[in-house]
Amino acid sequence: MHFAERIMSDLRIDGERLWRSLMELAQIGATPKGGVARLALTDLDREGRDWLVARARASSMAVTVDRIGNVFMRRAGRRADLPPVMAGSHIDTQPTGGKFDGNYGVLAGLEVIRTLADHGVVTEAPLEIAAWTNEEGSRFVPVMMGSGVFCGAFDLAHAYAARDVEGRSVHDELARIGYLGDEEPGRHPVGCYFEAHIEQGPVLEEAAKVIGVVDAALGLRWYDCTVRGTESHAGSTPMTSRRDALAVATRVMQETVALGNRHGPHGRGTVGYVSVFPNSRNVIPGEVRFSIDLRNASAERVDRMDAEIRAFIEQAERESGLAIELAQVAHYPPCPFDPGCVASVERAAAQLGYAHMRATSGAGHDAVYLARVAPTAMIFVPCKGGLSHNELEDAAPAHLEAGANVLLHCMLEKAVVAQP
Amino acid sequence: MHFAERIMSDLRIDGERLWRSLMELAQIGATPKGGVARLALTDLDREGRDWLVARARASSMAVTVDRIGNVFMRRAGRRADLPPVMAGSHIDTQPTGGKFDGNYGVLAGLEVIRTLADHGVVTEAPLEIAAWTNEEGSRFVPVMMGSGVFCGAFDLAHAYAARDVEGRSVHDELARIGYLGDEEPGRHPVGCYFEAHIEQGPVLEEAAKVIGVVDAALGLRWYDCTVRGTESHAGSTPMTSRRDALAVATRVMQETVALGNRHGPHGRGTVGYVSVFPNSRNVIPGEVRFSIDLRNASAERVDRMDAEIRAFIEQAERESGLAIELAQVAHYPPCPFDPGCVASVERAAAQLGYAHMRATSGAGHDAVYLARVAPTAMIFVPCKGGLSHNELEDAAPAHLEAGANVLLHCMLEKAVVAQP
Repeated sequence: MHFAERIMSDLRIDGERLWRSLMELAQIGATPKGGVARLALTDLDREGRDWLVARARASSMAVTVDRIGNVFMRRAGRRADLPPVMAGSHIDTQPTGGKFDGNYGVLAGLEVIRTLADHGVVTEAPLEIAAWTNEEGSRFVPVMMGSGVFCGAFDLAHAYAARDVEGRSVHDELARIGYLGDEEPGRHPVGCYFEAHIEQGPVLEEAAKVIGVVDAALGLRWYDCTVRGTESHAGSTPMTSRRDALAVATRVMQETVALGNRHGPHGRGTVGYVSVFPNSRNVIPGEVRFSIDLRNASAERVDRMDAEIRAFIEQAERESGLAIELAQVAHYPPCPFDPGCVASVERAAAQLGYAHMRATSGAGHDAVYLARVAPTAMIFVPCKGGLSHNELEDAAPAHLEAGANVLLHCMLEKAVVAQP
Repeated sequence: MHFAERIMSDLRIDGERLWRSLMELAQIGATPKGGVARLALTDLDREGRDWLVARARASSMAVTVDRIGNVFMRRAGRRADLPPVMAGSHIDTQPTGGKFDGNYGVLAGLEVIRTLADHGVVTEAPLEIAAWTNEEGSRFVPVMMGSGVFCGAFDLAHAYAARDVEGRSVHDELARIGYLGDEEPGRHPVGCYFEAHIEQGPVLEEAAKVIGVVDAALGLRWYDCTVRGTESHAGSTPMTSRRDALAVATRVMQETVALGNRHGPHGRGTVGYVSVFPNSRNVIPGEVRFSIDLRNASAERVDRMDAEIRAFIEQAERESGLAIELAQVAHYPPCPFDPGCVASVERAAAQLGYAHMRATSGAGHDAVYLARVAPTAMIFVPCKGGLSHNELEDAAPAHLEAGANVLLHCMLEKAVVAQP
């Protein structure tokens, strides 16, 4: 067997080392309930970044930082002219976040590099691990900020101008923590991109699979909906004289969920936020505001759901005589991942003998932006009860190890193992 | 024509004087928007009470106060052995209340007495005007406190113990403002009771009627309902894996309104209060709490509505697999008013030539408690747009005058005009 073939079939990452590095990074911003609070561009984020960069340098990686603070950790290949095969994710967390969301993708990448170093494996193309700035969007909006600027979804000035609740800007906070780099975002070549991530949903666990071969991310449309009626006394106003905003709003809420059900298997319809005015037991609601979240795997489906909710609202408006306002506040088109990269993930999972299935990402990830500039795919591993954005977020060490092994073999396949 | 007959056919109250007294009392606690904020047992309530008592004494009325602060203003009849024919309502207001709610019933009564004094009319039975303590319940719970104690709905100790948000008790505040009387509540005889009130609903205005002959007050049941699901990510949780508390709660909310519609014409079904947890756009709600308010004119109907909402909730629980908790938090049985008093109101309205109709009270009033101890009826007059509990509450002087004339003639009929 040739050296490259042997490497490709036998090489495995060190699952215990991966787990230790996850637990170590999770101490920076650790919460009493076992979660992590390490918001973007805080002192804790700097500590986390410094920890990461030190470990990359210890593995002989070259570190560069771009002007939005994205950190690239590079292991040279035999050919410097080839674009790097990249893995990555983010290390910022939600205010009451977990240990795995984002951090896993970055540290799985680091573990891949450490494994190659251990075995003296050199690749033709360089390998890079990216840690994208402010994926969570908890402190600064928009979310997925670093990858968004990198991939041209919005410009640097827009990102720089974002301020936290205390008025501090992204630009100033990047400078303050020492991660305002020189490199122009997006100038950095990317051969292809893989992102390992916990699923943040229940599908893999319910199906008893270890690896989700993520072939697409759902598109979404977010709306604010407002129904305006007339507040009046719940006792002295007969049913026929009412203009009950909640009675109309609940019809639209029901339809939102029904839309998700009708447009399966990837349809999602959610009302997460509701505000009722004046919100008093014996007053018929005069105004109800609520959010609508519609998602699906194809643009055509999302657009059909959009058309159907609009038609429903028009009819409800006609039938009730109440004014209903629908304002779209966000729109991300569905993101099909690169068939070549998806096939690579599927092949690796199969060859490694892991139970796997095709999956879609319902949540946003840096990979969704990266897919705009490079062939991209994601590797999901199960998380306990589908729980994420929660201090109780948990994942099995064996599953995390499996995902990192899949990442290793995808990167090796794309970067090509060099003969010694 | 006998004197009594002439009085009965020709006597009218002074509409302009009634209006002036309404506007004068409304200056005590007047708000910039034209409403009144005169909460029970505040300094402003004392000012209002003092103003009222001074005017009663100026009309030679004897004033007594009972131990819950109810004020009785008595005009002697020829026979002291007969129980008084009573009119009344309350002069406390909501924090952003109007000029007419409650105040109208008391001042219409005062205007009746003034009119009789002007014309030297004496009745066989004494006449009394009552101002009941804390009808609104805005500062101290329970609502309709003075009439509730008077009629034995709850005891004095319970009322005394009620505290406002700053911890001050009803007992101490009554003493502080000088309205902690000596008379044992309920010891006061009542021959019959009439309460004139703005409708606080749209029915009279919509029907272009001047007088509502109120033959009953609706019964009500109040509930708190809680649906418990599982909060999870709106993107990564497929529809089939969801336990969406709001999707189930909105079904119950829809059914609440449908119940009101099914059990017409007096049925009412209202959800006024909704609280969603965690109330975030991209999180499927894990818990929803909301109020249910069911009303109807007969106990049988209210009970049937209760049975139907319980059956619906049981079915929704079975179908969804989510836990739904329903807790009844208040129950007032329907209150049919006294046929003799109702007939008296109807007769007066007809003889005075006012467009009138039978009406039911959807809201609670002191009259609902009084009906437990004496023959009782209410006289409704329209209010603009049905608006009440609002600084913009408004009523037409001609309608207020008409209601007071009906009250005059009801009281004269029951008290019997004495021959000079």
